[in-house]
Amino acid sequence: MPEYTPAPLVKAAEQFARLPGIGMKTAQRLAYHILTLPAETVEEFSAAMVAAREKVRCCGVCGNFTEESVCPICSDPKRDAGVVCVVESPRDVFVFERGGGFDGVYHVLHGLLSPMEGTGPGDIRVRELMERLSGDVKEVIMATNPTVEGEATASYVGRLVKAVGVKTTRLAYGLPAGATLEFADDVTLARALENRNEI
Amino acid sequence: MPEYTPAPLVKAAEQFARLPGIGMKTAQRLAYHILTLPAETVEEFSAAMVAAREKVRCCGVCGNFTEESVCPICSDPKRDAGVVCVVESPRDVFVFERGGGFDGVYHVLHGLLSPMEGTGPGDIRVRELMERLSGDVKEVIMATNPTVEGEATASYVGRLVKAVGVKTTRLAYGLPAGATLEFADDVTLARALENRNEI
Repeated sequence: MPEYTPAPLVKAAEQFARLPGIGMKTAQRLAYHILTLPAETVEEFSAAMVAAREKVRCCGVCGNFTEESVCPICSDPKRDAGVVCVVESPRDVFVFERGGGFDGVYHVLHGLLSPMEGTGPGDIRVRELMERLSGDVKEVIMATNPTVEGEATASYVGRLVKAVGVKTTRLAYGLPAGATLEFADDVTLARALENRNEI
Repeated sequence: MPEYTPAPLVKAAEQFARLPGIGMKTAQRLAYHILTLPAETVEEFSAAMVAAREKVRCCGVCGNFTEESVCPICSDPKRDAGVVCVVESPRDVFVFERGGGFDGVYHVLHGLLSPMEGTGPGDIRVRELMERLSGDVKEVIMATNPTVEGEATASYVGRLVKAVGVKTTRLAYGLPAGATLEFADDVTLARALENRNEI
């Protein structure tokens, strides 16, 4: 930023730029915007961030974000505690719940295995998942993303789960709804063909 | 957001969504990200926003953001106080200074005339500009954006300045550097032709 720019403005922009997906230009624009807001609005904004970080913790059972010691999903008697959907992050729980098509419970790994980044099984919530399996869990759905790390994690954790005799499944691959064949990538198309269903 | 989502998380997302250019999806992503950061990092982030809003004020002369009562540009003896560049917002001063090609001073209007939004001459810093003209100002450059409101403001304020006998200019229109004719819009092309220079 130009040298005369006030230091607190530069610092605000730097803080915005640390957020994922926010580039330096957007960060500067947001910092300038902050200065045009009423002081109370900025204090409200800041307080909301600190409050979110302070009040929200991880569910003692599934690891999802919650204000309670056990989250509303885990403590809901209408949810099927016998089907556990294993995801990378609380954000993924959000995506499933938004869809509303799943009535089991979750297990948030809080990360994926990544030899490149030095993340091993001890760094994600694998042990906690295995401990849950001693109960009446009938099925574990590996619902990590279809990326290299997501696949590796699904494969590794899936094998551990299977080894203790619990049914293990993986999300289906295929064409996304509403997509046209023309824009499907080769891997997606090959998998859609391989996993074809009788009609 | 799904009903079980912790209230503080929803609030953080709502606060992000109030920022310009941040949609609800991005806001949710950012709020989830905040929860994964160390508490001190979130406090630093929040404190930077409040500090920026508290410490930065408007220069008593030009209206640009500064920590002093008079900004470094207005108080710099090397800048030509006789040439005043009139802009909409402090962000525009930033853009000019980043370029580094202007050695005069600025006047920030903090808005544009907009009958649609009910913004009249009394709502932007027009009076403050006219007061500055009693000094030794030789030229006023109208540097508002080439939008409907920007043009209307340049035209209105420009006429006022001209009426007190000060030379008034407007930023040139033409092809942006590096652009190809093919992608220039008709208005830009017509103006580039109209304002052609002898080589």
